[in-house]
Amino acid sequence: MPISKNSIKFIKALRQKKFRQKYNTFVVEGDKMVAELLAQRPSWCKALYALPAWLAQYTAAEQRAWPFAAEVVSSAELERASLLKTPNQALALLEIPAPAALNGLDGRLSLFLDGLQDPGNMGTILRLADWFGISTVICAPNCVDAYNPKAVQSSMGAFLRVGVVTAGLGELLGAFPGLPVYGADMAGDNIFTVRVPPKGLLVIGNEGSGLSPETEQALTRRLSIPKGEGGGAESLNAAVATGIILGVLLHANV
Amino acid sequence: MPISKNSIKFIKALRQKKFRQKYNTFVVEGDKMVAELLAQRPSWCKALYALPAWLAQYTAAEQRAWPFAAEVVSSAELERASLLKTPNQALALLEIPAPAALNGLDGRLSLFLDGLQDPGNMGTILRLADWFGISTVICAPNCVDAYNPKAVQSSMGAFLRVGVVTAGLGELLGAFPGLPVYGADMAGDNIFTVRVPPKGLLVIGNEGSGLSPETEQALTRRLSIPKGEGGGAESLNAAVATGIILGVLLHANV
Repeated sequence: MPISKNSIKFIKALRQKKFRQKYNTFVVEGDKMVAELLAQRPSWCKALYALPAWLAQYTAAEQRAWPFAAEVVSSAELERASLLKTPNQALALLEIPAPAALNGLDGRLSLFLDGLQDPGNMGTILRLADWFGISTVICAPNCVDAYNPKAVQSSMGAFLRVGVVTAGLGELLGAFPGLPVYGADMAGDNIFTVRVPPKGLLVIGNEGSGLSPETEQALTRRLSIPKGEGGGAESLNAAVATGIILGVLLHANV
Repeated sequence: MPISKNSIKFIKALRQKKFRQKYNTFVVEGDKMVAELLAQRPSWCKALYALPAWLAQYTAAEQRAWPFAAEVVSSAELERASLLKTPNQALALLEIPAPAALNGLDGRLSLFLDGLQDPGNMGTILRLADWFGISTVICAPNCVDAYNPKAVQSSMGAFLRVGVVTAGLGELLGAFPGLPVYGADMAGDNIFTVRVPPKGLLVIGNEGSGLSPETEQALTRRLSIPKGEGGGAESLNAAVATGIILGVLLHANV
């Protein structure tokens, strides 16, 4: 049965945050990520459209265990439904996961994203949180949506394992008074030589304007990634800076 | 005088590598990057199209000193010429810089990109080379072009300061026998605890398949970015991994 016009319309609407929120649904595409989804979180999946050859990797018994009926589609149909330039074998619709719980936030290191706007950076940051075992990423309300299709593609499936929640910094500090708040600042302590406990929040700001003044004021420690000799760039990409600080905080800096 | 149809056609053709190479020209767009270009390398600029308000930041004397005549364009014209979704005030055509010289390669740390395919990663890696003062980025012939418009946008102007050259690893090792070659490998030495001199080549592989077998064989040292406890991701983004290894090699690891 070909994929219906209404299904295609529904999938295309999920490009937009308002429809993702209205239907509590987002789109995941591509061989690897959909396979990972089915292996790790089949219950999150509400619909699956896939090429026959791709579906054939699952036995009939495996498919019967899924809480949805997979629909076999042709390449042409997948292309019509896809949000990608180059559709890739499978497309799934997922329930947006419940917001991550905030309890115990003071006992571990979490990321707080403040005005992050680029969906590729959002996904890349979720991916590196996943790599480094950071269980919670908190997004201020002014961030790009973590379930934006480009963010999802860049995350390489991190949303399956990393909890995401929207909250303001004031709210977090109200609930956890005295929470350490680390932020990047060129005038801060050299991340490679300072020793700070990997607990509290690591704050990452907007790609163009950095941290908001309120967040800036709440920092308890400023950390810098020093330039190399002769270094000319004005700044680092937000995801790259996050990776460097996280890696050093967690591994070198203890 | 409105921008001619031929100029627009010429600019659009520069999306493609074959035309960039044929005309030895690439496109740089946006307020910040074009301003930086005019401040640092005006002689590289062959043509400039800009909104009147943007051009007005330069005095008539400053404009006369440029080796090209700036053309004033309307927003609508800039939009027609631009390779960006959201054109931004100025667009310049630049001569592709001469390939970086390879002399002294054995006395410093350089990046060798092997099959890097994503233009955003290419630009982000040039930007972080710029930050860390890495003067030479060597691209194997199988890499995405460093002058691809998306790479240029992501580089934030790094191409103004970082030398790029295309060469194969065999050629480099022929010219510099015994050159240390570092590469990322999950089974390698922990980058946060091993001590290695920041000299030679740091090799970054393809986003999906990693290093080619020939490059893999040429590594003199394998370095790993260990996962955190409970870390789930299969890999890190190529630019993020480059940033972490470079930062640690240059700053913590000496």
